Amino acid sequence: MRLLLISLLFAVLLSCNEKTGTSDYPPMFAEQLARTQVQVEGFMEQGVEVPTPKDMAGGYTHEVHKQNWKTLRAAGALYRHTGEERYAVFVRDALLAYAAVYQDWPIHPTNRSYATGKIFWQCLNDANWLVYVSEAYADIYDWLDAETQSKLNTELFRPMADFLSVENPQFFNRIHNHSTWANAAVGMIGLVMEDEELVQRALYGIPADELPDDLRDDDSGRIKSKTGRAGFLAQLDLSFSPDGYFTEGPYYLRYALSPFLLFGRMLGDKRPDLGVLEYRDGILGKAIFGMLSQADPKGDFFPLNDSQKGMSVYAPEVVKAVDYGYFYYGKSDELLSIAEKQGSVTLDDAGLAVATAIAAGKAKPFKPASLAYTDGPEGDEGGVGVLRATGSADQTTALVMKYSAQGMGHGHFDKLAYSLYNHTGEVIQDYGAARWVNIDQKGGGRYLRENNTFAKQTIAHNTLVIGQTSHYEGDIRIGEKYHPDLYAFEASDAGLQLMSAKAQNVYPGRELHRSQWLLTDDAFSHPLMIDIFRVKGGGAATLDLPTWYHGQLLQTNFAYQTNNELAPLGDGQGYQHIWLEAAAKPDTNLLSFNFFNRNVFYTQTSVGQAGDEFLFVRLGANDPEFNLRRDQAVVHRRKAAGSSTFVSLLETHGSYSTLDEVAREPFGHITDLKLLVDTDPYTAISFRHKNGQSWMLLLSNQDASPDGQHNLVINGTTHEWSGVHHLIKNE
Amino acid sequence: MRLLLISLLFAVLLSCNEKTGTSDYPPMFAEQLARTQVQVEGFMEQGVEVPTPKDMAGGYTHEVHKQNWKTLRAAGALYRHTGEERYAVFVRDALLAYAAVYQDWPIHPTNRSYATGKIFWQCLNDANWLVYVSEAYADIYDWLDAETQSKLNTELFRPMADFLSVENPQFFNRIHNHSTWANAAVGMIGLVMEDEELVQRALYGIPADELPDDLRDDDSGRIKSKTGRAGFLAQLDLSFSPDGYFTEGPYYLRYALSPFLLFGRMLGDKRPDLGVLEYRDGILGKAIFGMLSQADPKGDFFPLNDSQKGMSVYAPEVVKAVDYGYFYYGKSDELLSIAEKQGSVTLDDAGLAVATAIAAGKAKPFKPASLAYTDGPEGDEGGVGVLRATGSADQTTALVMKYSAQGMGHGHFDKLAYSLYNHTGEVIQDYGAARWVNIDQKGGGRYLRENNTFAKQTIAHNTLVIGQTSHYEGDIRIGEKYHPDLYAFEASDAGLQLMSAKAQNVYPGRELHRSQWLLTDDAFSHPLMIDIFRVKGGGAATLDLPTWYHGQLLQTNFAYQTNNELAPLGDGQGYQHIWLEAAAKPDTNLLSFNFFNRNVFYTQTSVGQAGDEFLFVRLGANDPEFNLRRDQAVVHRRKAAGSSTFVSLLETHGSYSTLDEVAREPFGHITDLKLLVDTDPYTAISFRHKNGQSWMLLLSNQDASPDGQHNLVINGTTHEWSGVHHLIKNE
Repeated sequence: MRLLLISLLFAVLLSCNEKTGTSDYPPMFAEQLARTQVQVEGFMEQGVEVPTPKDMAGGYTHEVHKQNWKTLRAAGALYRHTGEERYAVFVRDALLAYAAVYQDWPIHPTNRSYATGKIFWQCLNDANWLVYVSEAYADIYDWLDAETQSKLNTELFRPMADFLSVENPQFFNRIHNHSTWANAAVGMIGLVMEDEELVQRALYGIPADELPDDLRDDDSGRIKSKTGRAGFLAQLDLSFSPDGYFTEGPYYLRYALSPFLLFGRMLGDKRPDLGVLEYRDGILGKAIFGMLSQADPKGDFFPLNDSQKGMSVYAPEVVKAVDYGYFYYGKSDELLSIAEKQGSVTLDDAGLAVATAIAAGKAKPFKPASLAYTDGPEGDEGGVGVLRATGSADQTTALVMKYSAQGMGHGHFDKLAYSLYNHTGEVIQDYGAARWVNIDQKGGGRYLRENNTFAKQTIAHNTLVIGQTSHYEGDIRIGEKYHPDLYAFEASDAGLQLMSAKAQNVYPGRELHRSQWLLTDDAFSHPLMIDIFRVKGGGAATLDLPTWYHGQLLQTNFAYQTNNELAPLGDGQGYQHIWLEAAAKPDTNLLSFNFFNRNVFYTQTSVGQAGDEFLFVRLGANDPEFNLRRDQAVVHRRKAAGSSTFVSLLETHGSYSTLDEVAREPFGHITDLKLLVDTDPYTAISFRHKNGQSWMLLLSNQDASPDGQHNLVINGTTHEWSGVHHLIKNE
Repeated sequence: MRLLLISLLFAVLLSCNEKTGTSDYPPMFAEQLARTQVQVEGFMEQGVEVPTPKDMAGGYTHEVHKQNWKTLRAAGALYRHTGEERYAVFVRDALLAYAAVYQDWPIHPTNRSYATGKIFWQCLNDANWLVYVSEAYADIYDWLDAETQSKLNTELFRPMADFLSVENPQFFNRIHNHSTWANAAVGMIGLVMEDEELVQRALYGIPADELPDDLRDDDSGRIKSKTGRAGFLAQLDLSFSPDGYFTEGPYYLRYALSPFLLFGRMLGDKRPDLGVLEYRDGILGKAIFGMLSQADPKGDFFPLNDSQKGMSVYAPEVVKAVDYGYFYYGKSDELLSIAEKQGSVTLDDAGLAVATAIAAGKAKPFKPASLAYTDGPEGDEGGVGVLRATGSADQTTALVMKYSAQGMGHGHFDKLAYSLYNHTGEVIQDYGAARWVNIDQKGGGRYLRENNTFAKQTIAHNTLVIGQTSHYEGDIRIGEKYHPDLYAFEASDAGLQLMSAKAQNVYPGRELHRSQWLLTDDAFSHPLMIDIFRVKGGGAATLDLPTWYHGQLLQTNFAYQTNNELAPLGDGQGYQHIWLEAAAKPDTNLLSFNFFNRNVFYTQTSVGQAGDEFLFVRLGANDPEFNLRRDQAVVHRRKAAGSSTFVSLLETHGSYSTLDEVAREPFGHITDLKLLVDTDPYTAISFRHKNGQSWMLLLSNQDASPDGQHNLVINGTTHEWSGVHHLIKNE
């Protein structure tokens, strides 16, 4: 019934708009305006409620204040576009209601944050509120009489801006997404009120020398930047790598980018002299394109570090990234196809431009390329590599390797970890965060204990764990000192793409070196993943290489024993959360493991050594509140090893439909996978397809220069090549 | 590339059809024809291969022969529609190739079936082959010269028909879907060859008195019918209840219906005097509509008994059910919307009629009603009830209760079990079968050992297990003797719908009585499920009531202890496959359990008694080949109980999106659920909504007549009503 009414209202408003001339707008923009009117009218009818703050995220007062910022912002935009005064009255009255109580509110009674807010449990949400409400305030500011302006400025906004800055320097002065919100909030309200002190504070930060150097936030993130710089311009300099990678990963960038774009756009309008939109060679544009490209073929962001799964380029928050990316950064028609699927545009010049271009039929498919993103403000702190290749039915495989810096408080201990995606979504998964954002039943929607005890630990990821100990001992203070380095990235040949990275210091005295390829060949219906993981140096220890796969185990080519009772695999570093379901000591050198997920078949083929074990594990031990998903992995375990090399291939093949019940190409094709050479300078492997074709892949381990000359004798044959790697195919 | 070529070919053929006049066909029919041409041309180019039979389902020779029947049938239809002789030549030559080798083939070397075939591992697939190839043969029969007809009749088809009947009476003479295929195969080829002996054999069966009375097939199904009847007309009489319910459930009906419809249609053409299409008041039409209605809101069949999940009304095999249902049984416009989504029509008059009606815009949404299907040939062996109700956003909830007969060899021991579905699919699941159909890696695609040891057992279902023993002791011979009975079915009031059934003999000396309602009320955003499960009589035993839910446990209102090591819950009857993850002894009489699945929230609220336990279990113990899914349940356990009653409510509420991360209505609303009265004649419960509204629900346990007069004094107030149940709401 309610839905019917809204539909009707929507239809009526659309037809009104036609009469009043707003029908000149292109359809997506006109619809956005009509939808916004429906929403705002609903709230205007109810009247604005300003409850005394009390609840955590997900709770009542939290959600009401959050809805208020959305409604006020929308009402401001409607006033701007329609000129109808009732919208301005609504915004003004709501702000006066806040002004009447704000200064008397104590800090939020929950007191559970390193920076407790007043309206919300954390300053961060107060800053969200101020960013969006500043926009509404901007929309009606000139319409207000001077007395109301002055009342709101002095009784609501200036106190709020001071609270979020000088009264909470540990929140305002970081190089961190929290502070970006704070800087934007203070700066935007300063621009509206023409309060130059606030604007300067926002741009350059405040002196906060009294804070201890190693102060940490709730997520163990460092409060005080090593550079000593603060404020919005410092954020622009230090939050992104030169190519726009955000050290916390795309899930957080999606969130962090909003204040950058909103304050940036307002500065672009009101302080064009600062050139913020062009700053650092258009860093905000690079961040937008980088973020949109750090997503799987379904559009879901790669869940690197602390990320909730399912956030995607189609999320409401990403609308402005797409629209501003289009409007300010090159009018790329590929962005229009994302905007179409988002079904929403910003109610401003950018959104209008996007809607107009879409109406003109300019949209083109968004096809991100293989790319290596650097990390760190100077781009010299490792990074993230993404290889993409196309298989049958034009389906894309995306392979992601993480060799980035720690990623601050939300970083995971997963150097050289990989994850794999295709048209079905995740295949080899990154666990993401142990958190249900805004679901009150799960710890008020905050990070759960298991985020530290499992999700951040190395064993939760598809990378090597040595001695059952996480990378950098699982200590952020150590992690922040180091980073892996890209060794090679070769994506120019679509048939064979390589990314390779090395990490020192992850384990003292050892070097980790992982190389991964996507091979596209007619013999395989989808790109073949090739993985060589070398560890060098250090004493004998247990090496564990997990593969967190989705789906149903079908078959292995070796026997395994399932356990009649389940016990945890270890007692710390994430191992305490893992049940050992089954184990094998394969008596073969070719370990094949075949599984099935979302109607696609996969086969992992690995090189085994005498004594290797293969463990079948499932998550969920020591989980007293059912906070962990019951996900599964296989672990390739090698005991008492020092320098050692793991080699595996992952085939994606065939399909199944529960509608016709036909299994197409259910078996993998690889035979004879061998590690032929493994010396300091060179590694060489070979493998064969059941159809008789075979391949030999040679890698230079110490010289990645494109024109480096190499030769290697294998079985009496000398192979010569230039460049980091070399593939030989025998038909 | 291949896809591109097929698209191109498709376009060319469509345009050819336009030129040759087949463009007079409505679009769906013309496209079907063009698609079929593309497929057949591909196989004609390759030439037909007739390999010596060797493999199980999923293996090479199996798949080739299976593809052959599809290609031949399609080629026959193309000849019929286009008159192009090359299609007839192709069919003829292929049949001659089979004729050249068929008689020399021994029975299939696998020898793993109670009725081993010649072409395939089981006679069943040979019969499939003959049914479809008979159609192709019919299409070209008059075009063949007499010599070829005679050669094929005597060297291929008559021997095959004899093999599938007189040489395998245990296969041909059952009342079972296998025999329906056999009957149809023999009858259809008989009609084509005008071999009256075969037609009579098909219609009336063969004498098979030498078979032992209790002979069983691979699935423990009884071979010999109790009635002594056999043949196609007996199948029509005995396979369906009078309202078209098929005792094995909709998954098998989808498969079994094909020979009924194909032989039925051919008989309708060639022997209209038999009136098969109108037989038993149009039983085939009732079976079609019944099957299409036994599906969840997404179109997936309810996975009752041995069913593979994911089979749906949109499966290719269901196309003919929809088209013939439309053409022969009432031209229901609701079927057209299913046909549209199937995107395919039969290449005959029925498909043409459907395509024509769709082109005329006649399609209407398919909206199955609440219905109680009877089971058994006389409709007196229990049945299956389906309640459907609508909630917010017009989303449908479907509640299924199974009180049917055993369902032959594919039946599960799950009397009075329920399952619940909505727009997201399964919520409270029926496990279905432990089988991956046609996936060779999993036991050749056959039923797995765990199908008997777990999937068929009672604990695998949402119904009461007493003394950790399955219903009827898990013995099909006992199960076939009894069935529950429907007690009441009231679906006329969309606001409150009831189904209630009773079962004796499931456990000796005990009566089980389950009543379930869907309550639709503005206070709840989706229909509220109400469940009262009474057990009466018998000595003290442990009662276990499992709820196999999908999703993530969020919260309970009582404490539980998770286990640091996992052990199986029991040692047989399915319990050996279940890990005990956690257990609670709640100290409250109101047990609330809140979970989250596919972005919807659910809350189960149950009445607890002193001493009750609540177990959190997960599937996967004693599963040496990873044949079981790691699904989960909560088990409400009551120890040392004789007569006892379980009461629970299941709320569906709220939503979450990972895109905006807002949790809407995440908490349930029920408080104060109480069992007020529980006597032999009456049960009464009451519950309250957090908004203050409350309900009292009264049930007559022994008199379900619509005009029965009842009065019951509760807390000093006398309640009078007529009919089986009575709801009182206090605002």
